[in-house]
Amino acid sequence: METTRVSLEKKVLSENDRIAANLREEFHQRGILCLNFISSPGSGKTSLLECTLAGFHPATRVGVLTGDIQTDNDARRLARYGFPVQQITTAGCCHLDARMIEKSLKLWNLDELDLLLIENVGNLVCPASYNLGEHAKVVVLSVTEGEDKPLKYPATFHKARAVILNKIDLLPYVPFNLDLARQNIRAMNPDAAIIETSCTATKGLSDWREWLENAQAEVRSPVAV
Amino acid sequence: METTRVSLEKKVLSENDRIAANLREEFHQRGILCLNFISSPGSGKTSLLECTLAGFHPATRVGVLTGDIQTDNDARRLARYGFPVQQITTAGCCHLDARMIEKSLKLWNLDELDLLLIENVGNLVCPASYNLGEHAKVVVLSVTEGEDKPLKYPATFHKARAVILNKIDLLPYVPFNLDLARQNIRAMNPDAAIIETSCTATKGLSDWREWLENAQAEVRSPVAV
Repeated sequence: METTRVSLEKKVLSENDRIAANLREEFHQRGILCLNFISSPGSGKTSLLECTLAGFHPATRVGVLTGDIQTDNDARRLARYGFPVQQITTAGCCHLDARMIEKSLKLWNLDELDLLLIENVGNLVCPASYNLGEHAKVVVLSVTEGEDKPLKYPATFHKARAVILNKIDLLPYVPFNLDLARQNIRAMNPDAAIIETSCTATKGLSDWREWLENAQAEVRSPVAV
Repeated sequence: METTRVSLEKKVLSENDRIAANLREEFHQRGILCLNFISSPGSGKTSLLECTLAGFHPATRVGVLTGDIQTDNDARRLARYGFPVQQITTAGCCHLDARMIEKSLKLWNLDELDLLLIENVGNLVCPASYNLGEHAKVVVLSVTEGEDKPLKYPATFHKARAVILNKIDLLPYVPFNLDLARQNIRAMNPDAAIIETSCTATKGLSDWREWLENAQAEVRSPVAV
C-alpha cells in the first residue's frame, strides 16, 4: 500500500516535471523571467507583489498568477495596478502545479510578457515539491513567524533563490533574532539572496527591485539559463 | 491517472479514519480529552502550549505530541514544563496522521493521561484532512496573518471547535480588523468558540483555560462524546 502510494506520487511528480520543463523552455525561448513565490499563509506575498507592481512603469510587460484554495481576493487586490492578473482557485489543493499554470497561460499571449510572477498557495511545505517551470523560487518569511522556520521547513528554504524577510517594521515588537534567522537560512542554503523588506513601511524595496532587475537581466542574457 | 490518484487518496484517508476511530474509542474509554492544534507555521501553537503547560499543577496528567517536518526544537521547548512530551518528526510529510499518533502512544501508558495535546505540523491546509482521533480541532490564527484566512482556508476553519486569535498584543501594529476576522470565522463556522490570546503579553489565557476545562468536563461526563 505504502509502496503503491510512493510510486504513484513519483508518477504525479514526474508528470508535473514534464509539463514544467515545457513551460521552462517556453519562458526561456521568449526571455520571460518566471518567479514562484512561496510562503506560509499571511507572510505578505500579496503585499510584496502589490508593492512590486506599484513600482513598475505602466508599460512593463508583467503578468501575475495567484493561487488560493478559495476566494479571488488576491487577484482583485493585484488587478488594481493595471497589469494582467489571473486567480487560480485550487478548490482544496494545497499547492499550484505545472498543469494549472499551463492551463492559465493558454489565456494569455506570452509574447506580450517579460516577467511572470506566480503567487503560490500559502503553505511552506507542499508547493516546494511542484516545479512550475520557474526560473527561481522566492520564499517569503515574515519576522512574526520565528527565526527557526528555515530549520523546520528545510526543503522549501533549500530550493529558494531568494529569501525575503518581510514585515521588518514589526521587529521591535516580536522576539525575532535577525542574525540567527540569517544563520538558519544559510545553514539550509548558503547561496540564496536574503533581502529584508517591509511593505507597509516601504523598507528594503529597492534591494528587492535590484534583485529582480538582476534576475531579469540574467534571463535576457544569452549566456544565462 | 487522476482517477487512480483520487481513489488511492480515498483509500489512504479511509485507512487513516479506521486508525483514528480506534484511537478515539481508546481516548473515550479512558476519559482522555485529545486536542489537535492546527495553524500556519509561526502562528504560536508552541507558545500557546507552553503557556498552557506552565499554568498546570505539576500533578496534571497531560502529555504532548508535537509534529514537525524536521528538528526537535518544539519538544525541547515543551519538555521544560516537566510533563511527558514526544516529538514526531515527519521527515517531509506535511501533516500528522493517525498511524503516527498510534505509534507514539505505544510508548506511553494511556492510563496515566487525562489530557493529550497534539501540535500538528505548521500548515493550514493538509492537517485538516487527517483525523487523529481527537475530540476537537483547535485552529490558531495569528493576527499578523490577516483576517481573510478563514475564507481562504475554509475546510480547516470549518472543522475547528475553537479558533484562537493569537498575538493580539501586535494589534496596534498590524492592519487586522478583529470584527471582520470574527465575521469571516463565523461565515465558515457558526459554532466555534473564538478566543483572543497573547502568549507573550499573557492576555486571554484565562478564557482559553476555561474553554479547556469545559472541554475536559464534557469528555468526563457520561452523557457527552
